[in-house]
Amino acid sequence: MAGNSIGHTFTLTTFGESHGEAIGGVIDGVPSNFELNLQAIQHELDRRKPGQSEIVTQRKEKDTVRILSGVFKGKTTGSPIGFIIENEDQKPKDYSHLEDVYRPSHADYTYSKKYGHRDFRGGGRSSARETACRVVAGAIAKQFLEAKGIRIEAFVSQVGNITLEGDLVNLPLPKVENSVRCPDDLKAQEMIDYIKAIRKEGDTIGGVVFCRVIGTPVGLGEPVFDKLHADLGKAMLSINAVKGFEYGSGFSGVAMKGSQHNDVFLPDGTTSTNFSGGIQGGISNGQPIYFRVAFKPVATIMQDQLSINKRGEKVVVDGKGRHDPCVVPRAVPIVEAMCAIILFDYYLRYQKTQF
Amino acid sequence: MAGNSIGHTFTLTTFGESHGEAIGGVIDGVPSNFELNLQAIQHELDRRKPGQSEIVTQRKEKDTVRILSGVFKGKTTGSPIGFIIENEDQKPKDYSHLEDVYRPSHADYTYSKKYGHRDFRGGGRSSARETACRVVAGAIAKQFLEAKGIRIEAFVSQVGNITLEGDLVNLPLPKVENSVRCPDDLKAQEMIDYIKAIRKEGDTIGGVVFCRVIGTPVGLGEPVFDKLHADLGKAMLSINAVKGFEYGSGFSGVAMKGSQHNDVFLPDGTTSTNFSGGIQGGISNGQPIYFRVAFKPVATIMQDQLSINKRGEKVVVDGKGRHDPCVVPRAVPIVEAMCAIILFDYYLRYQKTQF
Amino acid sequence: MAGNSIGHTFTLTTFGESHGEAIGGVIDGVPSNFELNLQAIQHELDRRKPGQSEIVTQRKEKDTVRILSGVFKGKTTGSPIGFIIENEDQKPKDYSHLEDVYRPSHADYTYSKKYGHRDFRGGGRSSARETACRVVAGAIAKQFLEAKGIRIEAFVSQVGNITLEGDLVNLPLPKVENSVRCPDDLKAQEMIDYIKAIRKEGDTIGGVVFCRVIGTPVGLGEPVFDKLHADLGKAMLSINAVKGFEYGSGFSGVAMKGSQHNDVFLPDGTTSTNFSGGIQGGISNGQPIYFRVAFKPVATIMQDQLSINKRGEKVVVDGKGRHDPCVVPRAVPIVEAMCAIILFDYYLRYQKTQF
Amino acid sequence: MAGNSIGHTFTLTTFGESHGEAIGGVIDGVPSNFELNLQAIQHELDRRKPGQSEIVTQRKEKDTVRILSGVFKGKTTGSPIGFIIENEDQKPKDYSHLEDVYRPSHADYTYSKKYGHRDFRGGGRSSARETACRVVAGAIAKQFLEAKGIRIEAFVSQVGNITLEGDLVNLPLPKVENSVRCPDDLKAQEMIDYIKAIRKEGDTIGGVVFCRVIGTPVGLGEPVFDKLHADLGKAMLSINAVKGFEYGSGFSGVAMKGSQHNDVFLPDGTTSTNFSGGIQGGISNGQPIYFRVAFKPVATIMQDQLSINKRGEKVVVDGKGRHDPCVVPRAVPIVEAMCAIILFDYYLRYQKTQF
Repeated sequence: MAGNSIGHTFTLTTFGESHGEAIGGVIDGVPSNFELNLQAIQHELDRRKPGQSEIVTQRKEKDTVRILSGVFKGKTTGSPIGFIIENEDQKPKDYSHLEDVYRPSHADYTYSKKYGHRDFRGGGRSSARETACRVVAGAIAKQFLEAKGIRIEAFVSQVGNITLEGDLVNLPLPKVENSVRCPDDLKAQEMIDYIKAIRKEGDTIGGVVFCRVIGTPVGLGEPVFDKLHADLGKAMLSINAVKGFEYGSGFSGVAMKGSQHNDVFLPDGTTSTNFSGGIQGGISNGQPIYFRVAFKPVATIMQDQLSINKRGEKVVVDGKGRHDPCVVPRAVPIVEAMCAIILFDYYLRYQKTQF
Repeated sequence: MAGNSIGHTFTLTTFGESHGEAIGGVIDGVPSNFELNLQAIQHELDRRKPGQSEIVTQRKEKDTVRILSGVFKGKTTGSPIGFIIENEDQKPKDYSHLEDVYRPSHADYTYSKKYGHRDFRGGGRSSARETACRVVAGAIAKQFLEAKGIRIEAFVSQVGNITLEGDLVNLPLPKVENSVRCPDDLKAQEMIDYIKAIRKEGDTIGGVVFCRVIGTPVGLGEPVFDKLHADLGKAMLSINAVKGFEYGSGFSGVAMKGSQHNDVFLPDGTTSTNFSGGIQGGISNGQPIYFRVAFKPVATIMQDQLSINKRGEKVVVDGKGRHDPCVVPRAVPIVEAMCAIILFDYYLRYQKTQF
Repeated sequence: MAGNSIGHTFTLTTFGESHGEAIGGVIDGVPSNFELNLQAIQHELDRRKPGQSEIVTQRKEKDTVRILSGVFKGKTTGSPIGFIIENEDQKPKDYSHLEDVYRPSHADYTYSKKYGHRDFRGGGRSSARETACRVVAGAIAKQFLEAKGIRIEAFVSQVGNITLEGDLVNLPLPKVENSVRCPDDLKAQEMIDYIKAIRKEGDTIGGVVFCRVIGTPVGLGEPVFDKLHADLGKAMLSINAVKGFEYGSGFSGVAMKGSQHNDVFLPDGTTSTNFSGGIQGGISNGQPIYFRVAFKPVATIMQDQLSINKRGEKVVVDGKGRHDPCVVPRAVPIVEAMCAIILFDYYLRYQKTQF
Repeated sequence: MAGNSIGHTFTLTTFGESHGEAIGGVIDGVPSNFELNLQAIQHELDRRKPGQSEIVTQRKEKDTVRILSGVFKGKTTGSPIGFIIENEDQKPKDYSHLEDVYRPSHADYTYSKKYGHRDFRGGGRSSARETACRVVAGAIAKQFLEAKGIRIEAFVSQVGNITLEGDLVNLPLPKVENSVRCPDDLKAQEMIDYIKAIRKEGDTIGGVVFCRVIGTPVGLGEPVFDKLHADLGKAMLSINAVKGFEYGSGFSGVAMKGSQHNDVFLPDGTTSTNFSGGIQGGISNGQPIYFRVAFKPVATIMQDQLSINKRGEKVVVDGKGRHDPCVVPRAVPIVEAMCAIILFDYYLRYQKTQF
C-alpha cells in the first residue's frame, strides 16, 4: 500500500535508505527449477554502481549483493528470493546540516510534510540508491527472458541537446559499452566531453535512454488498464529523475496522419513499419518494442543555491558532495531492469490466457 | 489479473464490449455519507459521447448511465457502486466481414493471437467505448476531490502541428468549451478547420491533451514504485491511442541544466518556478500538477488499406464507418476522469501516513 | 479495498443491495476459448433461490441472471464477464420502522456506526442476497474445473444436533437432492421434521455443510500465507452466518497423536488415511480435499425481541417477515460456489510454477 | 502471487528457508512518526524461540532480529521496515538422507511435485521457522494497536483432551506465562505432564490456542469478502499445523436456536451475551473478539515410520531430530502476531470509511 512493491505475478518489494544499514528486497513469484547465474546479477549491479568511470559520481560503493534464499544448488526453488546489499558508505558523517533544509527540487520538502519524521541522511528512502535493488530483480528476470529468446537492450540516445538520430531499433551495439553507454562512438565522445564540461561548471544535465526489446512473442499485455506499455510507462516513471515516457512514434506521432502512421501487415504477420512500437491494443504484436525515457538534470549541483529551512527561513544550500553530472549512463541498466521485471511479469500472466 | 481494474483504495473494475448488451463497472472503496450529484455524472458522459459536434464521430449513442447500488437517499453508503450503460447501437449489423481481417494498427491481430476467439463486432473489448465507464468513475472521484478544493482541468493543446503555446498552467478557461475543447478561440478555429480538412481526405490526425490539477495538498503519492506521476502516467497510457506522457518539464527538461531546472523554494513553501510539475520525489508538493498526453491518429481511416486476413492472405480493408477524424476533443473528459480516479485513490491512501 | 473482490487471477467483484435495483458483478481472469453452459449457471442459481421448498424462506425471487459481456458465440472471449440479477422483490414496502432499530445479531449496529448512513431496506449490502452473485461466478469456475476432472460436492451433514456420521468423503450422492440437501434419506427426514418444528416455534437453528473435492491435481496452493486451505477457509468464513471452518481432521485432530494422525504414503503416492484433508504444507496432494463449515442459527426469528434504537432507547423488534428457519439447505450451492472460485483461481496460479 | 505476502495496507512479505543463510521480511505501510520499542520485538521472538523450556524442541537458535531500515532515531519513518534473522543452526549437516524421502504428513511430497526442485534441508520454506518473521511484524503491529488501547491475548486452552473450560474471555491472566502458556496453573501442570509423557513415547499431540482481543473500536472489517473474521481465519489457517478456526460460538453455535444465540443489545450498545464473538456482519461491534485455533499433532515423531521415496520405493523414516512434542506453547505468540497484523491492517483501512 505504501508502494514499495511492483508486479502482479513476478513481484519485487524493496526496502532501505541510502545511509541505513542495508538495502534489499524480496522477489516473489520466481518459477522454480531454473539455473540462475549469480555472476550475471553482480555484473548488472556493476553497470549501475557509482565510481565506475570518470563521468559518474566518484563515490565508492561496491554494491555486493548477498542472496539469502530461494536458490538451492544453483537452481531456483520457487521460494521467494530475499537479498541484501550492505551499505558501506555509512560513515558517521554529519548530515545534521541537512536536517532542517529543503534542497531545491529534491524530495526533502515533500517527505518532511508527508511523514513528519524523515531519515535525512543522503536522501534516505528517496535516494536513487534504492534502484540497486531493482537491478537485482531485473537481472533475474532478464535471465528467464533470455532463456525464452527475449532480449532487452538500452542505451543513451541523448545528453542535453546532443542526440543520436537514425534507426535506433536496428542500430548494432558494440560488444563493450563505453562510459556514456551510447553505441555511436562519435556521439559518445561528444556526450562525454559535454558532461565533463557541465561538471566543471558544477552543473548537471538531462538525457534520454532508449530501450528496445527483441524477440517478444505475440500476446504479452492485458487489455484495458494493464496495457503492456502502460505498465512499462509506470515502471519507467517510477525511476528517480524521469519526467517522460513515450513508445513507438510517441509524441512525434501526434503530427502524423492515420494513413502514414498505420503499420501495414505483411503476409507473415510482421508489419512494414513499426510506429506502433511493437504493441497494439496494449498487447505485444511480435515486432520490436521500443520506447524512450526522459531524465531531468540531477537536482544536486555543485553551486550554492538559495532555499528555505523547515521554519521558512531563507538559507543557502552549499554545493558540495559527490554526485552524477548526468544520470543517464548509470540509468541504462536501471531502465533495462525495470523493463525486464515488467516483461517477465507479463510473460507469466500470459500463460493462463487460453483454456 | 486480466487487468480490468485500477486503483488501490478507490477502485474501478469495468466490463463490456462495444457491441455487446451493455458496458458497465463496479466502483469500490467509495467513502460513505457523501451527497452524490447524479446529474454531474451524466454531464461528464455527455462530454465524451459520440455525435456531440460536427468534428467527432456521427454515431449516435445516448450513453445513459444507470446506477444500480451504493447510493441511498442521495448519499453514498460505502457499498460498491455498480452501474451499466446499455448499448443502443447494437443492431444486428453484419460484422462478419471483419471476422477474419486484421485491420492495420488495430488490436485485431493481437487479440486473435492472444485469445484464440474474439468478439470482432466493432472492436469488442478493445473499443474506446470502454472509456465511458472510466468517465463514470472519474465523475464520482471528481466530486469528492472538488469537496476538498482539488480541481482538474484538461484541454486540447495540440492537433497535428497546430500547437497552443504559452503558460498553459495559468491560462484562463472559458465557461463553455468549444467543440475542439481548446481554450484559445483562434487556435481552436484553426484546429477545427484542420480536422474538417483531414476528415474530407478520409484521414485522421493526432493531438495532445494538456491537464492541470489545482489545489492538491502536499503529500499525495507513495515513494518508490507508486510515485504519483508514475500512476498518473500509467492511467493515461491505458487510454486508447495514447503514445506518450510527460509531466512538468517533461522531454524538454532533458536539455536543461540543473541550475535552470531546480525550483527555488520561497519562504511560504511555494516555488518560484514549477519545472517539477507539482511533484517532487513522487509526492505532490502543493504546486499545480500538470502533464501532457500524446494521442496518435486514429487507426480507422476512410481510405482503402492493404492488410492480411487470418490465413495470411492479402486483403483490402474498406474505408467505411463512422469514426473520429481526431480523438483529442472527446479524450479531454477521459483524461480528466483518469486523473480524478488516480488522485482520489491517492487522496484516500494518504489518510493513513502518519500515526 | 473495501473488500468486494475475491481471487488473484480469477477474480469476482460484486455489488448490490437486497432491495436496490439489481445486484451483479464482474468476473475477471476468465480464460478464453471455453464453451460456457449458460443453463448450468442458472441451474446453480435455482439451487440457491428462495421459495424452492417448504423448509426455506417463502419469498419469491426468480434470480434470473443476465450475462452482459465476455461471451461471444457461446464461448468465453477472455474479456471480463459482467452480469446482473434484477431485484424483483423491490416493492415500495415500508422499511422505515427498521431505520432506527438495531436488530440483535444483525449487522444493523455495526453498519450504522461504520458508515454513518446505510441502506436499511432488508439488510442492504449485508443481506445474504449478495451470495447469488457468488453462485454465478462459482458456476462458471465449476465448468472449467469439471473440464479438468475436478468435482466439487457439498451437502448438509448437520442440523442442530442431528448429525450425519460415517465416511462422508466416500458417501454416494443421490442423483436428485432432497429439500434439506442431506444425502441420507433417513437423516434428511429427521432434519426436515426438525426444521419444520423449529419454524413452528418461530425460531431458527444452525447447521453444518460438508464439502469434498475429488480429482484435484497435486500442486494447488501457494506456500506460507496463501495456503490452499487458508483461502478456502477465508472464502467460507466470508459467507453470511458462518462461524467456523475445519478441514481434514479439523478440531478432532487436536486430541490425536502424531503416530495416529500421520498419513502413510503408499507406493503410488496416495495415502492410506487422509487426516490431512488432501492438503499438505498448504498444497493439494491429490487426495480428496474435504472440509466442514459451521453456520449459526439465522438471526431473524419470528419472535418479538428486545433491542435498542439509534438513540439507545429500548425497543421491541417484531417477529415478522419471510426468512429461513435453517440456512444450510440453501447454503450448499454457496459453499460449492466459493470452493470452485478458490480452486479455479489456484488452478490458474499453478500454471506458472515451474519454468 | 506466490503467496509470501499478507495484508492490504499494512503488509508483510517474508522470505527464507529453515537452513538457508537467513530468513527475513519487509513490512510496508507502517505509519510514520511512531516511537518503536525494539526490545519488545525481540521479546516476542523470545517467546517463540526454540529451546526456551523443557517441553519444547531443544534446538538452540537465538533468533536475533536485525532491523535494516524504516526506523530513524527511534521512530518509524513511513519507509518499509526490512529485517533479517540470521540462521545459526546452519551447520553443514548432512540432510541428503531426506533428499529423496517423503516424510508422512509433511510437505515433502507436495513441494517435490509442485516445484520439481526443493530445498530439503529441514523442511526448507515449509518449515515453521518462517513464522519467526510473522512474530517480528506482529510485534510491531501490536505496539501500534496498544497505543490505541487494543490488547491481544492468546493462551493454550487445550492439549490433547485436557481442556480449559469456563469463561475464557474474562479469565485473568498471570503476569508471567508458564511453560505451556495456559493461565490455569492446575490445568497447566496437567498439560505439561502429559506433553512430557507424550515425548517419552516419541510421539506428539495436538492442541488449541484461544485468542481474545479487548478494546477494538466499532467498525473494523469490510463487508462481503473481507469480513474481519474471514481474514483472521485465513491468517490463522496459514500458520503451520492449523486444521481449524472458529470464532464466537463457533461449531457449538450450530446446535443453538436463534432465540438463544442472538446477542441482546443493552442501551449503551454493548450486548448481554457475546455469541457473535465481537463481530457482526463481518465488522467489529466493540465487544471482545475471541476465537479458537486448532493445531494438529506435529508430523515429526521420534518413531520409525513407513513411507516412500521419490521413486515410489518403500522406505523407513527414522525417528530422530529435535522437535516439539506439542506445538501450541510456542504457537501462542504466533497466533497473537497474526491477529495483530490483521487487526492493524483493518485499523488502517478503517480510517477512510466515511468522508
